[in-house]
Amino acid sequence: MKIVVLKFGGTSVGTIEKIKKVASIIGNYRKKNYKVIVVSSAMRGVTNDLIKKSRQISKNFSESEYDVLVSSGEQVACSLIAGRLKYNGFKSRSWLGWQIPILTQGPHKNSRINQINKNKIISYLKEGGIPIITGFQGMNNDQRITTIGRGGSDASAIMLAKFFKAQRCVIYTDVEGVYTTDPNKFNKAKKIKVISYEEMLEMASLGAKVMQPVSIQDARLNRIDIEVKSSFIKKSGTLITKKSNIINSKIVTGITSTYNDSKVTLVGVKDKPGVAASIFKPLSTNSINVDMVVQNISANGKETDLTFTIKTEDLNKTKKIIIENKRIKFRKLLFDKRVSKISIIGVGMITTPGVTFRMFQALANKKINIQVISTSEIKISVLVDKKDTKKALIVLHKEFKLNK
Amino acid sequence: MKIVVLKFGGTSVGTIEKIKKVASIIGNYRKKNYKVIVVSSAMRGVTNDLIKKSRQISKNFSESEYDVLVSSGEQVACSLIAGRLKYNGFKSRSWLGWQIPILTQGPHKNSRINQINKNKIISYLKEGGIPIITGFQGMNNDQRITTIGRGGSDASAIMLAKFFKAQRCVIYTDVEGVYTTDPNKFNKAKKIKVISYEEMLEMASLGAKVMQPVSIQDARLNRIDIEVKSSFIKKSGTLITKKSNIINSKIVTGITSTYNDSKVTLVGVKDKPGVAASIFKPLSTNSINVDMVVQNISANGKETDLTFTIKTEDLNKTKKIIIENKRIKFRKLLFDKRVSKISIIGVGMITTPGVTFRMFQALANKKINIQVISTSEIKISVLVDKKDTKKALIVLHKEFKLNK
Repeated sequence: MKIVVLKFGGTSVGTIEKIKKVASIIGNYRKKNYKVIVVSSAMRGVTNDLIKKSRQISKNFSESEYDVLVSSGEQVACSLIAGRLKYNGFKSRSWLGWQIPILTQGPHKNSRINQINKNKIISYLKEGGIPIITGFQGMNNDQRITTIGRGGSDASAIMLAKFFKAQRCVIYTDVEGVYTTDPNKFNKAKKIKVISYEEMLEMASLGAKVMQPVSIQDARLNRIDIEVKSSFIKKSGTLITKKSNIINSKIVTGITSTYNDSKVTLVGVKDKPGVAASIFKPLSTNSINVDMVVQNISANGKETDLTFTIKTEDLNKTKKIIIENKRIKFRKLLFDKRVSKISIIGVGMITTPGVTFRMFQALANKKINIQVISTSEIKISVLVDKKDTKKALIVLHKEFKLNK
Repeated sequence: MKIVVLKFGGTSVGTIEKIKKVASIIGNYRKKNYKVIVVSSAMRGVTNDLIKKSRQISKNFSESEYDVLVSSGEQVACSLIAGRLKYNGFKSRSWLGWQIPILTQGPHKNSRINQINKNKIISYLKEGGIPIITGFQGMNNDQRITTIGRGGSDASAIMLAKFFKAQRCVIYTDVEGVYTTDPNKFNKAKKIKVISYEEMLEMASLGAKVMQPVSIQDARLNRIDIEVKSSFIKKSGTLITKKSNIINSKIVTGITSTYNDSKVTLVGVKDKPGVAASIFKPLSTNSINVDMVVQNISANGKETDLTFTIKTEDLNKTKKIIIENKRIKFRKLLFDKRVSKISIIGVGMITTPGVTFRMFQALANKKINIQVISTSEIKISVLVDKKDTKKALIVLHKEFKLNK
């Protein structure tokens, strides 16, 4: 069977008119003789409204009831989509997580799909039906409704594509695809036609908000081609696929910038073995993620300056931990929220020497100071002053010929 | 087990604050060592909003998807109630129709509960849990969500009371109970402390909107005591029970008036056998319910006038049927929307002669003209000019000493 999974996000089904549009997109796939499996999120705003209600009931609302509560949102969206498809003359019906069932493991609010019973859906597809499946939810072994935390409906779509061996998973959203950099920050950003899972993972982890990293990783592990495209504009989107499917890749595929990093500097730390660990261990046990790290060589060989970045939301907690931990000795503690992490990403880097130099030179030419550096095989990140963010995006975009 | 079923209507759970109030009512029963089963409707307005959405999708929205759509409302309400009870320190959880399961038969939108699996709920009650069960819905043999048409959540509550052999079913609503007559029409109306199923059935069928007749009938057949009371005011309500439980009943328990009847008169109908049938048969096949009927004796023995009442909403359809049916011969066709049906209801009538005379005399004293009469064992209905409705209620309320 030529199966395609179509996933629609909350904005795509945000109004009745948009649901009608979505139904016509789905119908077009069916007319092209695809077996179509649809996954939908809740209508935009519905989930937040339900969460608000739960908070009004109690600040510490039961997690199992939370799942019952919010899962109603997808139920509504799916019944409306199926209703519209039937009105349009197609055989269609909604399938709630428990009806298939989609089985999950793990705690409420943060379960993971670990099994999908295929029989009913396969029969339904063979009869020519279009199943409209509730994203973001499943059922656990106690027959209770669960929701899957990270990745949400995207993750549901990828798992359905995996279990049903779909040819492709199309993620319909409110943007046209993945861009070389954030088009809201730089209007010359170009839509990327094709990108590898690995690059997309880095892009998503570094601030591109199109998809959650966990879903991309699931797609990568299961070798599922993902197409990200707009449900409003009829244009091809971005294909996320394995590296070997990509010919003629550029050195750099995309550039990202973050807005929520903060820099922490401990001045005058005793320069002896184990000192970095004594700082990072309490942060780690408090679930604070340390990202970029740099340690200056001390002039006298006795003291050093240690700089690292964390998410700004963790700043107060970090301060508290460092100050209250008597084992950490330093002379001065500095914080800086006015930083931005600029990253260039591309699998082409692996085989192309001198990319780092080109990046640094391009930034230097514009007098942009690099505060911290971190690299992986397929990305280079630098920390710069926040005010230089846009300037950095523009110069790097040009340097690596992403305008073309 | 001393089981009580508590049912909360849409107004009772209409806001977060009201849900908190409802949770405290439930908690009080639990503290009194009752095993409590709760049934809830959707939050007020939610179901109508969902129905509106379905109509925007299609005028002829799929009935199976309609059930998926609207059943989400009770799911939300029940999770919020359970969440609040847990916050208050009770063991509680929501149970959706399919989780129990509550099995239904019949078409979508209009199913009937025919089986409730008791095992899980009984275990849960034994563990001290308070199950919060979605009203108005169940699951059919195809594992699809269904809704029960008439009676809604009241019917769910009665059926749960039946299957779990509850001592009592308490219907919490936005009024304090059942009144001798509509308190909105006559401010001296008194709350009825106890009323028989039969009287309540007549009251409900004749315009008292507290409960749907079908639910009262189910309660009667299963001998389930119902208490109707307010979820906002802490006062005892009205007990609906079997006749033999009622001592010292008044002759008349309640008085109702309708606002949506119309009178149809065919003047100069040929007075021969089968003529009434030739008129009422086509109405019946078109699902038009003929209520009160009177046929005047003709002066010449050849012609007669036939008068009957129907619901005003059926008036146009009725006109069309009578005019287009060539077999119905008459000289003139008259319609009158300006009528009201006043009924007195009471099991005491069976054993008390002269009630009809007292009613007619009381109305005559106020110069209220009786147009049509119909009676049953426990009620007398008269059709009067709509402008006399309030006057009739007042005089009858006084005549049968309902003010006391």
